[in-house]
Amino acid sequence: MGKDKKFVEAITSMEDDFAQWYTDIVKKAELADYSSVKGFMVIRPYGYALWENIQKDLDARFKATGHENVYMPVLIPESLLQKEKEHVEGFAPEVAWVTHGGTEELTEKLCVRPTSETLFCEHYAKIIQSYNDLPKLYNQWCSVVRWEKTTRPFLRTSEFLWQEGHTAHATAEESEEETIKMLNIYAKHCEEILAIPVVKGQKTDKEKFAGAKATYTIESLMHDGKALQSGTSHNFGDNFSRAFGIQYSDKTGKLEYVHQTSWGMTTRLIGAVIMVHGDNSGLVLPPKIAPIQVVIIPIAAHKGGVIEKAEEIKEKLLNIARVKLDATDKTPGWKFNEYEMKGVPIRLEIGPKDIENNQAVLVRRDTREKITVSLDELTAKIPELLENIQASLLEKARNLRDEKTFSASDINEFKDIVENKPGFVKAMWCGNRECEDKIKETTGATSRCIPFEQEHIADTCVCCGQKAKHMVYWGKAY
Amino acid sequence: MGKDKKFVEAITSMEDDFAQWYTDIVKKAELADYSSVKGFMVIRPYGYALWENIQKDLDARFKATGHENVYMPVLIPESLLQKEKEHVEGFAPEVAWVTHGGTEELTEKLCVRPTSETLFCEHYAKIIQSYNDLPKLYNQWCSVVRWEKTTRPFLRTSEFLWQEGHTAHATAEESEEETIKMLNIYAKHCEEILAIPVVKGQKTDKEKFAGAKATYTIESLMHDGKALQSGTSHNFGDNFSRAFGIQYSDKTGKLEYVHQTSWGMTTRLIGAVIMVHGDNSGLVLPPKIAPIQVVIIPIAAHKGGVIEKAEEIKEKLLNIARVKLDATDKTPGWKFNEYEMKGVPIRLEIGPKDIENNQAVLVRRDTREKITVSLDELTAKIPELLENIQASLLEKARNLRDEKTFSASDINEFKDIVENKPGFVKAMWCGNRECEDKIKETTGATSRCIPFEQEHIADTCVCCGQKAKHMVYWGKAY
Repeated sequence: MGKDKKFVEAITSMEDDFAQWYTDIVKKAELADYSSVKGFMVIRPYGYALWENIQKDLDARFKATGHENVYMPVLIPESLLQKEKEHVEGFAPEVAWVTHGGTEELTEKLCVRPTSETLFCEHYAKIIQSYNDLPKLYNQWCSVVRWEKTTRPFLRTSEFLWQEGHTAHATAEESEEETIKMLNIYAKHCEEILAIPVVKGQKTDKEKFAGAKATYTIESLMHDGKALQSGTSHNFGDNFSRAFGIQYSDKTGKLEYVHQTSWGMTTRLIGAVIMVHGDNSGLVLPPKIAPIQVVIIPIAAHKGGVIEKAEEIKEKLLNIARVKLDATDKTPGWKFNEYEMKGVPIRLEIGPKDIENNQAVLVRRDTREKITVSLDELTAKIPELLENIQASLLEKARNLRDEKTFSASDINEFKDIVENKPGFVKAMWCGNRECEDKIKETTGATSRCIPFEQEHIADTCVCCGQKAKHMVYWGKAY
Repeated sequence: MGKDKKFVEAITSMEDDFAQWYTDIVKKAELADYSSVKGFMVIRPYGYALWENIQKDLDARFKATGHENVYMPVLIPESLLQKEKEHVEGFAPEVAWVTHGGTEELTEKLCVRPTSETLFCEHYAKIIQSYNDLPKLYNQWCSVVRWEKTTRPFLRTSEFLWQEGHTAHATAEESEEETIKMLNIYAKHCEEILAIPVVKGQKTDKEKFAGAKATYTIESLMHDGKALQSGTSHNFGDNFSRAFGIQYSDKTGKLEYVHQTSWGMTTRLIGAVIMVHGDNSGLVLPPKIAPIQVVIIPIAAHKGGVIEKAEEIKEKLLNIARVKLDATDKTPGWKFNEYEMKGVPIRLEIGPKDIENNQAVLVRRDTREKITVSLDELTAKIPELLENIQASLLEKARNLRDEKTFSASDINEFKDIVENKPGFVKAMWCGNRECEDKIKETTGATSRCIPFEQEHIADTCVCCGQKAKHMVYWGKAY
């Protein structure tokens, strides 16, 4: 019992210190570890398994919509990065520079890719000639480096894993359609797989991607009321194609510039899963991304027949769920804590009494509800319960998000919400950068997005009192 | 027809210029392209799809043997790289150095990982305490950078994609067992999936990995008689654990050093597939890695019912094979060339006469054999044919390899073989570095491996005439 106790005590409660609670989970659930280079993390097997499940779902969605994977170089020459003016201004201050290759000093320094627009553009300029070559729907899975001063595992690191989609189209309409299509795929992934509800909308000019005509985003809300940008999709129009000379001849033989998009999702999603679903016992994983969906824990395992029955159940469930039997000699109490910390959706307990009664006890990680099930019904009950947990996690997250979403019609109310009820603030905006800056200065909140689903909260801008153009989601953000 | 002709003429024949033939296939089959940084390539969708199929098979084999995927940082501090003496000597001359992060000069320079032993060791030193923590069976999929002077797509590039397995074990016996186990997995992958026969053996001390106690390798033979090292597996013993202080307490509480391994396979395998199976019409792909296994080409597609029938066949085959219907308005002749270039194992032709006779014509890419099949038998015939092609590619490659494998009992015979009959040379060796160096100097061939299956060719070393220790495979290599 001493060992069990120690394990539980080691977790900071989220009410006491949310940041420490987060860090504790990352460490104790063995998701990631620090490396010797500040801001660079080691993603451990359990954390990486989450990423693999995210990848598997996203990659299937990309392929189902006609996208193909490619791989571009990890290094970008300085001159190439500089070709699109806004883009280089956005990224140059945060890249890592390679100055020596082997024993020689390079004649031109190369940056470790912070994102790959310039590489895709260079390639597209070579391979796109005619309207027959369009659209190009490419994606790549890789890591990128952006030098960060303050870092936190998964949420903000100097290196992260992601996918970056880069597409080229004949017309502005097609690139806009693609941008929105991918944003919708991101939103579906978040809601259907991660059980995280999102607000879809457009970034303001201030917050949009360096070089984009329009940036769309999905924003989610964490347990502490802070927002997390969870995926972005950019329409570049012909900004990059003009800078890189990416032209195609249309059906009449006339040369036209292509219209481009890019879109990305990252390992930061793992941070979102922690902060949306986790509790003071650790991770709570949606079944669809859980590396282990059911953990079988034998009770009084030394008694005859218990381990055998546990093995038998495991075999039965192997084709139904990702299942693990923990037959180590640790105590059941220790194991309960361990798999609660790791957020395994269902714990299955099987002991001598259960065997006598031809039953097992199922315990839900999310609600801790105990359900006694006949062993004959197990293969029917488990998938049903997993679906139920998946759905109820989404519902719970949606309720929490809604409870933490407020409307403000004047700046004092706005300030009060930010100070006392952290969450999303819905408020009207005139569309001017000055007001956006002033709101940040006054309240600490940034614009998260101009949601596609507009609501009328007031006629006038919450800041300047002039005629309002948009309803905007604001909030403090990661 | 002019267009078809031009397409065919554009390929150099392998007999005329093997290197140019190789480069032509890489370009015309759209496997890879050059980037603006010398030695760094763009892997295009068709090339990347090959890599995805290789990954899928290898990853499943790794997981089935208990390995877990992780992700380590892309950058390694100079001081960390220097911890194991032989290792840093082997790699320091060929790494890319990052000296600036963001706007600041770094206090310690960081290299872009050329391989990740040092990172895994640093992590293992932190997470391994007791015998209960062993073994650790980790793998990562990533890219690595090694500055190369002369590069060729897939075969030798300054950046390549690979997997690197890194494991830690309690005993020397276990690490040796793991090293051999992974070599066998590599050999099986090559033979069963890539249809490439390999020679398994041990590297000489001269050729082993920087920091390893023993390096094992699988060597394959290309169409031009040159050898290709296709995968390596290293047993480090306690070399790295002593340098990094990776210790565990055994059951009696005594501190012991762990024993480690590492093993890797790379995108160079795609180069092997080209050079083992390709011919003067382009790629020839083993069905198991072919992104498209069957391409359906409608003949006289403008005639009523042809496209409809082609679509119907496609639907029928979708669950049986990776199938593509090319219904573009290019000529059938153009399409034949295109998919021959891309190495698609089976071409299915369907025209008005075929429809009349309720049949289709299948053409094998490897033998060009034409087979007329009743449409009712298609779903049975296609999988059978794919298996048949897979098996006959392996057999053909094995025969070619055997034809190009020679024995030499003295150095003149050895020289004559290397000059006139490029291939593997089997010859006895005394085990001394001097003779190994001299053989290279005299003949141009390097030792490929000391094969596990030893043969007795002579009693004495082919070079010095002293008592021989081993039979060695020698050859010129990529």
